[in-house]
Amino acid sequence: MRQVVSVLVRNHPGVLSHVAGLFTRRAYNIESIAAGVTERPEVTRITLVVSGDETVVEQVIKQLRKLIDVIGVIDLKYSQAVTRELILMTVFLSAEKRVEFIQIATSIEARIVDISDQTATIEFSGNERQIHTVLMALGGFKIKEMARTGLIALPIESVGIGKEFLV
Amino acid sequence: MRQVVSVLVRNHPGVLSHVAGLFTRRAYNIESIAAGVTERPEVTRITLVVSGDETVVEQVIKQLRKLIDVIGVIDLKYSQAVTRELILMTVFLSAEKRVEFIQIATSIEARIVDISDQTATIEFSGNERQIHTVLMALGGFKIKEMARTGLIALPIESVGIGKEFLV
Repeated sequence: MRQVVSVLVRNHPGVLSHVAGLFTRRAYNIESIAAGVTERPEVTRITLVVSGDETVVEQVIKQLRKLIDVIGVIDLKYSQAVTRELILMTVFLSAEKRVEFIQIATSIEARIVDISDQTATIEFSGNERQIHTVLMALGGFKIKEMARTGLIALPIESVGIGKEFLV
Repeated sequence: MRQVVSVLVRNHPGVLSHVAGLFTRRAYNIESIAAGVTERPEVTRITLVVSGDETVVEQVIKQLRKLIDVIGVIDLKYSQAVTRELILMTVFLSAEKRVEFIQIATSIEARIVDISDQTATIEFSGNERQIHTVLMALGGFKIKEMARTGLIALPIESVGIGKEFLV
């Protein structure tokens, strides 16, 4: 099962590798990780997408809560969360394909951030379904390089509250 | 000095905490980390923003290149890179402030992704300067929760190539 786990930590050196290490020591696969400061500069939010056995993730969350630099752990259910990811992608682009590429990029609300004589770089964001659609729409172009942020997530306020456990 | 380091790794358990650990063991502060799969499903790109002594980061990069699961390390200069970050932010919002909030959000090209009777959640992306501008523009609203992806980066193809070192 895939789960989104959001961990609030104090900005101390080592806390990031410590959190990641707790999952990997249990042979839990981390699909993506995104970490950035929050509205409180001394606090970082780490969002992990993990896959594996559900009971194991519950055990890892219990261990996370015992770490001195962990302020809170939120086990976000997909149905109760706004999830978003950002992608930068550079594709090879010949001159005769440029108009087609720009039309597709515009239709999927991707922003073109760089164009050279042989490439184009675009930026786009969305939930997993939207990202999948964009990647399919651009399937005809050869990717030179791609960088993904990994998912971030917040609880949906309008329909319910995520299961929030404060340590 | 702040540097953006992009590391291509094979998707093996433990490689992420190993990479993060190399920086923190040298007391190097990781400002943000973003990791997601690339166009090759077996390869993950880890983008780190680190601050500290420049010679130390060169040493860490040398050590990274020796790791068996590290395919390549790119030391991206800001001036030669497209850098982007994505933010999800939920603010407290009273009914009488709603029009003002929507006007500001529209003017800064932020997408409103959720509205409840007391809150609004928006999504926006940009480079560091643009993110700073949005945070300033929304400074009058009390933040309930914020999640940031951390920066991702690709070389600017139109003006030059990032210093790319393949292991």
